[in-house]
Amino acid sequence: MENTYVVLHGLKDLRLETKPIPPLADDDVLVRIKKVGLCGTDLSMVYKGRTGDLQVQYPTGVGHEVSAVVSQCGKNVTHVKTGDRVTVEPGSFCRQCDLCLAGKYNVCAKSSFHSDVALYPGCLARYFKYKAHLIHKLPDSVSDEEGAIVEPLAVAVHACRRAEVSAGCSMLVTGAGPIGLLCLVTAKAFGATNILVTDIKDSRLAMAKRMGADHTLLVTSGDAQSQAQQVQQIMGYQPDITMECSGTKEGLSLGIYATKSRGKLVQVGLSAPEVTVPLVHAGVREIDIIGVYRYLNCYPIAINLLAKKLVDVKPLITHRFNFEEFQKAFDMFYSAEDGAIKCMISC
Amino acid sequence: MENTYVVLHGLKDLRLETKPIPPLADDDVLVRIKKVGLCGTDLSMVYKGRTGDLQVQYPTGVGHEVSAVVSQCGKNVTHVKTGDRVTVEPGSFCRQCDLCLAGKYNVCAKSSFHSDVALYPGCLARYFKYKAHLIHKLPDSVSDEEGAIVEPLAVAVHACRRAEVSAGCSMLVTGAGPIGLLCLVTAKAFGATNILVTDIKDSRLAMAKRMGADHTLLVTSGDAQSQAQQVQQIMGYQPDITMECSGTKEGLSLGIYATKSRGKLVQVGLSAPEVTVPLVHAGVREIDIIGVYRYLNCYPIAINLLAKKLVDVKPLITHRFNFEEFQKAFDMFYSAEDGAIKCMISC
Amino acid sequence: MENTYVVLHGLKDLRLETKPIPPLADDDVLVRIKKVGLCGTDLSMVYKGRTGDLQVQYPTGVGHEVSAVVSQCGKNVTHVKTGDRVTVEPGSFCRQCDLCLAGKYNVCAKSSFHSDVALYPGCLARYFKYKAHLIHKLPDSVSDEEGAIVEPLAVAVHACRRAEVSAGCSMLVTGAGPIGLLCLVTAKAFGATNILVTDIKDSRLAMAKRMGADHTLLVTSGDAQSQAQQVQQIMGYQPDITMECSGTKEGLSLGIYATKSRGKLVQVGLSAPEVTVPLVHAGVREIDIIGVYRYLNCYPIAINLLAKKLVDVKPLITHRFNFEEFQKAFDMFYSAEDGAIKCMISC
Amino acid sequence: MENTYVVLHGLKDLRLETKPIPPLADDDVLVRIKKVGLCGTDLSMVYKGRTGDLQVQYPTGVGHEVSAVVSQCGKNVTHVKTGDRVTVEPGSFCRQCDLCLAGKYNVCAKSSFHSDVALYPGCLARYFKYKAHLIHKLPDSVSDEEGAIVEPLAVAVHACRRAEVSAGCSMLVTGAGPIGLLCLVTAKAFGATNILVTDIKDSRLAMAKRMGADHTLLVTSGDAQSQAQQVQQIMGYQPDITMECSGTKEGLSLGIYATKSRGKLVQVGLSAPEVTVPLVHAGVREIDIIGVYRYLNCYPIAINLLAKKLVDVKPLITHRFNFEEFQKAFDMFYSAEDGAIKCMISC
Repeated sequence: MENTYVVLHGLKDLRLETKPIPPLADDDVLVRIKKVGLCGTDLSMVYKGRTGDLQVQYPTGVGHEVSAVVSQCGKNVTHVKTGDRVTVEPGSFCRQCDLCLAGKYNVCAKSSFHSDVALYPGCLARYFKYKAHLIHKLPDSVSDEEGAIVEPLAVAVHACRRAEVSAGCSMLVTGAGPIGLLCLVTAKAFGATNILVTDIKDSRLAMAKRMGADHTLLVTSGDAQSQAQQVQQIMGYQPDITMECSGTKEGLSLGIYATKSRGKLVQVGLSAPEVTVPLVHAGVREIDIIGVYRYLNCYPIAINLLAKKLVDVKPLITHRFNFEEFQKAFDMFYSAEDGAIKCMISC
Repeated sequence: MENTYVVLHGLKDLRLETKPIPPLADDDVLVRIKKVGLCGTDLSMVYKGRTGDLQVQYPTGVGHEVSAVVSQCGKNVTHVKTGDRVTVEPGSFCRQCDLCLAGKYNVCAKSSFHSDVALYPGCLARYFKYKAHLIHKLPDSVSDEEGAIVEPLAVAVHACRRAEVSAGCSMLVTGAGPIGLLCLVTAKAFGATNILVTDIKDSRLAMAKRMGADHTLLVTSGDAQSQAQQVQQIMGYQPDITMECSGTKEGLSLGIYATKSRGKLVQVGLSAPEVTVPLVHAGVREIDIIGVYRYLNCYPIAINLLAKKLVDVKPLITHRFNFEEFQKAFDMFYSAEDGAIKCMISC
Repeated sequence: MENTYVVLHGLKDLRLETKPIPPLADDDVLVRIKKVGLCGTDLSMVYKGRTGDLQVQYPTGVGHEVSAVVSQCGKNVTHVKTGDRVTVEPGSFCRQCDLCLAGKYNVCAKSSFHSDVALYPGCLARYFKYKAHLIHKLPDSVSDEEGAIVEPLAVAVHACRRAEVSAGCSMLVTGAGPIGLLCLVTAKAFGATNILVTDIKDSRLAMAKRMGADHTLLVTSGDAQSQAQQVQQIMGYQPDITMECSGTKEGLSLGIYATKSRGKLVQVGLSAPEVTVPLVHAGVREIDIIGVYRYLNCYPIAINLLAKKLVDVKPLITHRFNFEEFQKAFDMFYSAEDGAIKCMISC
Repeated sequence: MENTYVVLHGLKDLRLETKPIPPLADDDVLVRIKKVGLCGTDLSMVYKGRTGDLQVQYPTGVGHEVSAVVSQCGKNVTHVKTGDRVTVEPGSFCRQCDLCLAGKYNVCAKSSFHSDVALYPGCLARYFKYKAHLIHKLPDSVSDEEGAIVEPLAVAVHACRRAEVSAGCSMLVTGAGPIGLLCLVTAKAFGATNILVTDIKDSRLAMAKRMGADHTLLVTSGDAQSQAQQVQQIMGYQPDITMECSGTKEGLSLGIYATKSRGKLVQVGLSAPEVTVPLVHAGVREIDIIGVYRYLNCYPIAINLLAKKLVDVKPLITHRFNFEEFQKAFDMFYSAEDGAIKCMISC
């Protein structure tokens, strides 16, 4: 059986390739891809040749937000069977270091993201082979497109769990991109009752409002301290938690000044390698600055929230393409105005 | 100014009395009562002369689930003013022992429930005077009747916080009385996605279903182990958390067998002074048995959940009376069939 | 290469057997046993045919407290090499269920203790083959006999971690057997500053005193409530934590009455399948009853505590035998008066 | 009765003043001061006119590290009596805001440090009057000088509690000043088994070594990343926790690079209002940056650790003066070479 998939051979050099699918190991599952979502990381790989600090090593596969159907199972696999609708959790880990044994597999030093093309050709493909314990079954009540959003939703779930969002919490979300919006809807599913979202674009704030933000604030002027006062004035008090989703020092500084004493500031967005921030103000008010990396045991929760209609992610999907149109999808998404939040490709 | 209030002078001996209201201290607030809810504790005091293990000391006031309007404020009071709609958190505490300083005021050894008639005549009254920091303002979106349900709702909030209920949690609730039902709706507001409620009466399970239970199970036959298997079969797995709300050893045993390893069994209901239970089975599966007593910093959360319509408590209110009908209210409530869940008195 | 090991073929039917050692898998390590400690579980298997609730399935290997030297390594093994002194963590687990992935491998439903004779012939043997990630290297500063005590010490470390023992804590230990004594010395290494140990035998209390107990109490008379008052009187206050190491309902009841409100009662000892206890008194004072099962990421800590001389376990070793004397060792240990705490066999 | 105390009237303008002692309120205690320790904050107030970001408001009292004897008690006071040896926890709080009720009184927005001269003349005085619940009794086994070190020791205890230091932990301490050294000895009392201390002065590292550091590292050259590699090489792995006690961006950066994934970096030292640091590297490795402010329910623990000889703080006291020599004490301490760690004044 052959697989056709998209490979990135260099800056902006996406190509379609075809190869035989290697045989399944006993713990492997082969899935046929249905939907793939594109995200900022994909764009960054294609158009900038890096993700965060990491230089892309060519060639590499692309695509990691995915829904699929099980095509074939290794002989040890019991929790899914051929024909099951599934989603794939990217990022394998060693399962024997102290971090893995302590249930913190997402920061395992040997974890590898599944676009390592030598091993995995990426999910923007007809087929994808992966370790069984990272294949999660989708219930009927979760659509294929929703299934392809489980990955970024799991990021938001992880952020909410690390921040210990609980019923009655108040929250500031800085940055209304896809991850900020997912943090918004997820925090509400965790019971947060007062959420203010900031951004530098009105159109994004309108979307935040539509997806359930209690308040929004345009942060195009003023310094972090005066913006923090505005946040407090609008919300009625300082928020318990700030989800920093803009990846900017402005967002981090606002979070430090705006968050309640003994609150939490969660670094969801990736900021520059070095940032200048008022860290001591977080210290003396005992605001803890929490790191989050991918997700940790969050796929089942994200799937549950979708299945029970506790989050509505459909407004995020603004554009749709077929597999053959992958180049067009990337170009449109890259050049898009604010309106493009999430682009979905049918394989 | 005079106050008229109900006093319990002995078993089933409720009387209306009138006395002048003593002057306010600087940190006191005087409120005019609007609604008072009756609960099982009130019934137990009147008809059995005890609550839990405690013998009632006559005379005593009755009523502690209450909404009110601020009538007068001591001079140090700033967070409420005359005319504000409020609810009252019963149970004052010393604020200087190590438990109070550690934020665990609900188990302060010097805490006193506010029906201590020498100090407080109970809330089934025209007026009630109490410490300002235990008076919580109600927003417009919370009705007077809802305000009188904040107290038992706060019990459920406390149970959910102690159990660390979080989005995607599964839960078994044993016992569908008022507290069990409030645990159900509260857990859903905390994001629980799969809840099974048990009871020995079908009518109560019907109410649980109506208030959002994913599953119900009538537990009139079978032993705890076979019931636990039924729970697992119905839910698809063992629940993360059991809220024991029946106050029986059967409920405790079921919780021990049914809860997932490393899960939590919360003692919400008050069981007999000694119970025979399979404690070692909780131990070897590392199920923690969590105690809950009243509430701890839960009033603001309970009020928030009502204000944001994240819980609907109105189906609980099955009967309504005027202040003058207090005797009738007690008698009806005591003799009531299952239909009577919560009885509300307008003062 | 051949292995000689002790097999239990029925009640009191221990036999020496010899078989070829099967080939190593890539992730396996073969060790040559140096010291094996006997514990109550071993005795129970041999003389009562069960451990806790579990009936022994014959034939079975015996021995799980062990120090050894690496004899051979599978080709994937990197963290130890031939000649390294090591100890072995018993109890393998699946590494892919949700409990394993959440870092709670000790309660994995598929965990198997390593005396499963079909797979593992027990550690009372010349050689033992096991999974590499459960082989822990011993530093030079830890002796072979100390290495064989890492297993029960890890139980005490796990109990202290589950109870969140911290500097300045006070503790009640009910039962001064080997595990109670190990909880005592371990809690002191965690910074506990006031520990009272109870037992029904004076000789054991004398040992507790010698190993660092601040106070001891003989509990041969009085009910749990009066004993709890004695504990409070002697310690000056109620202890933060009770480590129940007697496995009796008396110990559990004492713990419930004696522990401070919002404290923790840890079920370390295994009690009868059903016990009659005042559970509601734990509930209303919010004392949490914590289960512990074996150990979880505790071997490295236990080894560290020994290496840094933060615990002294040598007084526990009261008897020593050679491998050939295994029958004598069991018989002596079983019939022993209180003096026999831990019996060590050189292989 | 009159009190004589030191008042700071402006930069370097310390004066001795005498005033009648105002009458005691019912919850007040009057103590006669025995020992006062000087710390960096005191020096900063006198010679720089500010502490951290705060400008000193003249006139102000000085001194807050103190041991004393109870001279007189208000009528509600029961936990101490005249003649008791005590220490004083500075920083009162409102006891009714949500942070106080949640047991986080140290970050109460209304907390006031007790050198507010209008209310409190500082502890560098003959007498000092304060709220009873902030007066802690000293056992006989804690000397007067040790009693005056309880305050900075409580800072270290709070840092260890916030960082959840536990037995077997490894730790990096950046900065070997008084607080860094106290974190070192306190972490060892909490069971930490591998501690590396850095500083830019050899003499301070020698003191760290003397007080129990497992390793030291002079950080006068190299960037944070190369120093982090040195730390890992010396310790054998990355430390679980970094206590940043230097108050510098270099220390913060080293902590971010050196700490283990999912570890904690505690901001103990006060850094500049804005610092340039690689925050994103903490984020993607899920290192949490924990704030600490003063202490929270830590006095009893600090006193316990001294009483049980689990920490030895005596090496810190390098200079001693009489009350009359206060000016000399300040001048010597300010101009002192590294040798001066802690200066103790007898009142």
